[in-house]
Amino acid sequence: MTLGTLYGISVGPGDPELLTIKGLRRLQQASVVAFPAGLHGKPGFAQRIIASHLQPEQLLLPLEFPFVLEMEVLSQAWQVAAKAVWAYLSQGQDVAFACEGDVSFYSTFTYLAQTLQTLYPEAQVEAVPGVCSPLAAASMAGLPITVRQEKLVVLPALYAIAELETAVQWAEVVVLMKVSSVYSQVWQVLKQHNLLTSSFVVEWATNPQQVIHRDLQDKPDLQLPYFSLLIVQKSG
Amino acid sequence: MTLGTLYGISVGPGDPELLTIKGLRRLQQASVVAFPAGLHGKPGFAQRIIASHLQPEQLLLPLEFPFVLEMEVLSQAWQVAAKAVWAYLSQGQDVAFACEGDVSFYSTFTYLAQTLQTLYPEAQVEAVPGVCSPLAAASMAGLPITVRQEKLVVLPALYAIAELETAVQWAEVVVLMKVSSVYSQVWQVLKQHNLLTSSFVVEWATNPQQVIHRDLQDKPDLQLPYFSLLIVQKSG
Repeated sequence: MTLGTLYGISVGPGDPELLTIKGLRRLQQASVVAFPAGLHGKPGFAQRIIASHLQPEQLLLPLEFPFVLEMEVLSQAWQVAAKAVWAYLSQGQDVAFACEGDVSFYSTFTYLAQTLQTLYPEAQVEAVPGVCSPLAAASMAGLPITVRQEKLVVLPALYAIAELETAVQWAEVVVLMKVSSVYSQVWQVLKQHNLLTSSFVVEWATNPQQVIHRDLQDKPDLQLPYFSLLIVQKSG
Repeated sequence: MTLGTLYGISVGPGDPELLTIKGLRRLQQASVVAFPAGLHGKPGFAQRIIASHLQPEQLLLPLEFPFVLEMEVLSQAWQVAAKAVWAYLSQGQDVAFACEGDVSFYSTFTYLAQTLQTLYPEAQVEAVPGVCSPLAAASMAGLPITVRQEKLVVLPALYAIAELETAVQWAEVVVLMKVSSVYSQVWQVLKQHNLLTSSFVVEWATNPQQVIHRDLQDKPDLQLPYFSLLIVQKSG
């Protein structure tokens, strides 16, 4: 029996047309389509992005990845997910795992793929790269993210608020991913460094509910959704 | 007369299938397709990537962007290019400008779009985001680029060799773009910081001539092509 392959499909930031041609092909050729399960029985974000691309005969496999930080709970969930995927791979069926953004960039796919290959070293995995949210946000704002000799820093905001000061002093461009929970602290740091007019926030880049906030001077307490990022451009 | 729109099309790192569905649609709907001209009359990189997607009736518009650092020469070239594009836009024709990688990320498109909008403030510009080479390189190497709380730094290597030491001390992941001309100096810095086994180089990510160099310990003097990047992962 030939084993199936687990394809990590980068489905991009939200606009279903921002899937690549290759991602679409791999997605549509797989007999099983997996994705992170949504909350409270609602479809998850990646599932909503790919909904219009799916074929009626494809089997849908929502996988549970709890929103917690405890490694033991997470590790347990990844093992359950990897075993569910392996059940199909070992029968020769390909599984396409759809992830928002890019599958290499702060993505759930990494944990699934690593757990799968630890449990089943013979498992075959292929990642299809895609559009990450910082690049999408810059395009939507009509701005370059970086030019010429600029240094770029990307910080996962939740963990790295303590590093923001160093980042804005050193790099010309700083991206804060998932900025919502630390926005008011970030705003204070930007104010101290006189960077509020050189910063912008994009909520839900490329999605129908996208909002762009430019010039943050009078916006100390924006209420932002989870999928929000902030870009500081010292030249801007 | 309705003006045409200049679309910046991110054509990705090389595999023609890594264009997005939206990029393909915008590219194929434009009556004029522009791209950076190749050297010595050969097709340029972006032109080769999109060749299989073009329609026979589309007009091809190669634009000259000299490989120099002098701002005056560059600025002159951008003005010539912007005027050539405006000739079509002002007649109501859309122009798709194809750029390798992502059009917001260290891209020629930025200079073309900015020059166009300076010369002709009424010009309409839309960027279609795409797959950038660091994400493509990570996928091809079968590795995540970043996970969890990792800080990411991207340095354009040619300008930022002096900053590499700071970057590898501070961030968990460092990407050096276009590393070829400074590779031997980079190798020495990585050796001093005991990072040679945690680094890899990808030449021509996703292209037929792609090469991946893992574990750089015994590779102090790789001869690399222009489209090569190096990724340092301190956890790797």
